[in-house]
Amino acid sequence: MNKITETLLRIVSEFDGDFKGAFNIREDGMCAGRQSTEHVRIESKTDKPGLEIHIKPGTKGETISIPACVTRGNVDDLVYNDFYVGEGADVTIVAGCGVHTDSDDEARHNGIHRFVLEKGAHVLYTEKHIGTGSGTGARRIDPVTEVELAEDASLEMDTVQIKGVDSTIRKTTGTLAARAKLVVRERIMTDGYEKAETDFEVTLAGEDSGADLISRSVARGNSHQMFRSVIKGETRCTGHSECDAILADNGTVSAAPALEASHVDAQLIHEAAIGKIAGEQILKLRTLGLTEAEAEEKIISGFLK
Amino acid sequence: MNKITETLLRIVSEFDGDFKGAFNIREDGMCAGRQSTEHVRIESKTDKPGLEIHIKPGTKGETISIPACVTRGNVDDLVYNDFYVGEGADVTIVAGCGVHTDSDDEARHNGIHRFVLEKGAHVLYTEKHIGTGSGTGARRIDPVTEVELAEDASLEMDTVQIKGVDSTIRKTTGTLAARAKLVVRERIMTDGYEKAETDFEVTLAGEDSGADLISRSVARGNSHQMFRSVIKGETRCTGHSECDAILADNGTVSAAPALEASHVDAQLIHEAAIGKIAGEQILKLRTLGLTEAEAEEKIISGFLK
Repeated sequence: MNKITETLLRIVSEFDGDFKGAFNIREDGMCAGRQSTEHVRIESKTDKPGLEIHIKPGTKGETISIPACVTRGNVDDLVYNDFYVGEGADVTIVAGCGVHTDSDDEARHNGIHRFVLEKGAHVLYTEKHIGTGSGTGARRIDPVTEVELAEDASLEMDTVQIKGVDSTIRKTTGTLAARAKLVVRERIMTDGYEKAETDFEVTLAGEDSGADLISRSVARGNSHQMFRSVIKGETRCTGHSECDAILADNGTVSAAPALEASHVDAQLIHEAAIGKIAGEQILKLRTLGLTEAEAEEKIISGFLK
Repeated sequence: MNKITETLLRIVSEFDGDFKGAFNIREDGMCAGRQSTEHVRIESKTDKPGLEIHIKPGTKGETISIPACVTRGNVDDLVYNDFYVGEGADVTIVAGCGVHTDSDDEARHNGIHRFVLEKGAHVLYTEKHIGTGSGTGARRIDPVTEVELAEDASLEMDTVQIKGVDSTIRKTTGTLAARAKLVVRERIMTDGYEKAETDFEVTLAGEDSGADLISRSVARGNSHQMFRSVIKGETRCTGHSECDAILADNGTVSAAPALEASHVDAQLIHEAAIGKIAGEQILKLRTLGLTEAEAEEKIISGFLK
């Protein structure tokens, strides 16, 4: 793999010169390294670009890394990765993505991920996104995530857009069977003229299923963010979504979190708050010796932690 | 006016055989009584059905009643009422509506109200809706409300749908100048196969303007309610919307309250919660001697108060 990929991997995944466990490194649409393990089989799809990742039932404690990097302009990488997580497995999947361009040409990654969790499986999924490079070409990351959770399965998604991504449209859909749980923590920072759109649609189809979506965003410069969510409660279930946004400079944010309760035992809640950092918070930190800019930075990093 | 109108007026307005102050009674699309006062001039529109209501600057403490009743099937009443409220006026407007049918034919009232409040004017607007009669024809009330608030003007809307309205689509739009305030309290009860849709769009265009939308709904039987709101913060302003819904039987509710902050000093918040009455609340009242049905009734009436 090239030097840019190596640098990006250190930021977006747990790469330290090597990966522990099963991995596949995607670089500019090609495979730059792959390893399966006894319990995790990674195979190329035969019908379209992408991977099939099969995790055996009962697999515990393994980490699977599937980072994807675009290291130059004029690359529009589209990939379909399907994860089949066997009954009772408990694993971590790390799926960072970096897009880099030093030219006027666009660098884009468009990853379509499907998670099929069998009964009682648990996955912690982490995803870090970053855009880098000196070029004027746009850095785009457009992930699509489809989640199917069988009975008692649970997926925790922890996603962060660090910086430098000019445009992102993030679509996540999920269907939950009985007692399945979906927890999403999303943190997005935009600056300059960046745009970020987030779209969740979660269907609570099984009894006592539950979803918890928490989105935190900071919009600085002239950036714009849009958050949409729909939680559908079709049976006895609990759903919660929360969207908190901090505005700075000329940043703008829209939030539209919808709830649809079609069963008397569905309990759905949402909250959203958009605004700039309260003056008192800044003042408090300034009395401790920080400049206004340092105070703002400290509050924002705490908010996105 | 006929007996049905008289009965409806006692429910939806403050009619006790007479009205205090200026009034216009609309019955099946016709005028069944009108009175102007020294400060309040009520005139028929010349270009389309409806009224122009002119309230002189500085008018204080007057109540203007403009109830509308449909007392039989096969009436589809469309009316345009424009309220011009002069600078510094402070008045109450009572705009109840009853629709009644004893036949298989639909009874519908479609009132398009425009409120133009001049600087510093204050209006308390109350509206009660009910459907009655033994017929199978649908009872429909579809109000459209357009609000323009000049600097320092304020409008409080207090609206209640009591019962018996088979279908309602309620659209309210508002634009607020500097320091203007809009407060909306909406309470909607649906049962049977009734449907209720609510749509708010409020633009906070002037500095330090503020909007507070509170919607409480109870959906029983097989009824369905849909709440939508958009609060647009275009400058330094505060916006809040809240949508709480109680489900009973097979009632269903959707809520989609959106926020759009296009200015760093816009502070926008919303909350929504949908669910049935908590078991503990029922239990508590039952230990005080109430039956389960009585307990539910008591909680619902408190919630809608």
